[in-house]
Amino acid sequence: MKMGQGVEWALHCCVNMSWSPSGEAVNSARLAELYKLPSAYLNKQLQALVRAGILSSVSGPRGGFQLARRPEKITVLDIVLAIEGPEPAFRCESILGNSPDADQLEDYVRSCLVSQTMRQAELAWRQALSRQTIAGIAASVERKFPTAKKDTLQRLMPARG
Amino acid sequence: MKMGQGVEWALHCCVNMSWSPSGEAVNSARLAELYKLPSAYLNKQLQALVRAGILSSVSGPRGGFQLARRPEKITVLDIVLAIEGPEPAFRCESILGNSPDADQLEDYVRSCLVSQTMRQAELAWRQALSRQTIAGIAASVERKFPTAKKDTLQRLMPARG
Repeated sequence: MKMGQGVEWALHCCVNMSWSPSGEAVNSARLAELYKLPSAYLNKQLQALVRAGILSSVSGPRGGFQLARRPEKITVLDIVLAIEGPEPAFRCESILGNSPDADQLEDYVRSCLVSQTMRQAELAWRQALSRQTIAGIAASVERKFPTAKKDTLQRLMPARG
Repeated sequence: MKMGQGVEWALHCCVNMSWSPSGEAVNSARLAELYKLPSAYLNKQLQALVRAGILSSVSGPRGGFQLARRPEKITVLDIVLAIEGPEPAFRCESILGNSPDADQLEDYVRSCLVSQTMRQAELAWRQALSRQTIAGIAASVERKFPTAKKDTLQRLMPARG
C-alpha cells in the first residue's frame, strides 16, 4: 500500500502558496523547478486541487495557482483526499456474505467486526490529518526554518522578492 | 491508495483458526471454499503470515495452517504489516532537499513538517490496529453472531463438527 508522490508535492505547494503576498498566483513551472519535479505531472496534481476547491487557477502572464480559501481552512486531509480520492484504503468486500451460512439480509460491510476494526483505524488516520492545516504547517515551518519563507518567495516570485 | 484484498482474507482466516479445537490445522482449500476465494492466491497470503511468524503450516493428511501463537498475542496490525509490508503508505521523498536553498546537512525526512504530519497520522492508524487482537475480534463475533463459530467449524472441520 503506497500513497502517490503527489501528496507530498501538493502539501508543499500549498504551504508555499500560503506565503504568497496578498494571495497572488504562483507559477507552477517555478514550483516544479524549485523542487526538481516533473512539471506536467505536478500540474496534474495541482489541477486535482482545483477540482476539489482547494486551489483556483489564474490565467494570463502573472497566472498560476492560488489558494481558493484561507490556509486555516485547508486541512491536510482535504489535500490527501483530493489527490488520492475519497475511498478508504481498506475496502471491505464482504467475504462473510459469500459463506453458505451467510444471512442474505445482513449488511456485512457494516456489521463485520473485521470491517469495523479497519474502518475505525482509518478514521483515526483521517482525524489526525484533519487536525493539521496548511496554516499550521506554514507557521511551524517559519518557526523551525526562519529563512524558508523568504527564500521560497524569492525563488517563486523573484520580481516581488 | 488501496490495500490488497489479502488483508480482509487473512483476518477472517485467523479468526477462524482461533476457533479450531486445540489449535488443529485448518485446511486452506476449505477456507477458500467457505468464502469463495481463489485458493492459490489465498494460500499465498497465508504463507506470508507464516513468514511473519503469525501462522505455522502443518503438512500431512490433516495438514493446513494454525496460529503460531495465542490469538490474544496477534494484533490486527501484525496481520496488516505481514500482508502489506512494513513500509508506511506515505514515503517522504524529501523534496525539500532538492531546493537550491536546502541545507545539505539537514535530514528533511525527519525535520520536514509535512513528513511529520503524515507520519503522526500513520502512527495513529497503526496504534488503532494494534489495539485490536484476533482474540478480541473472535469474541465480538461470537457475541454478535452466536452461531458463527459452530457454523464455521462445521464447514472447516466437518469430521470434528
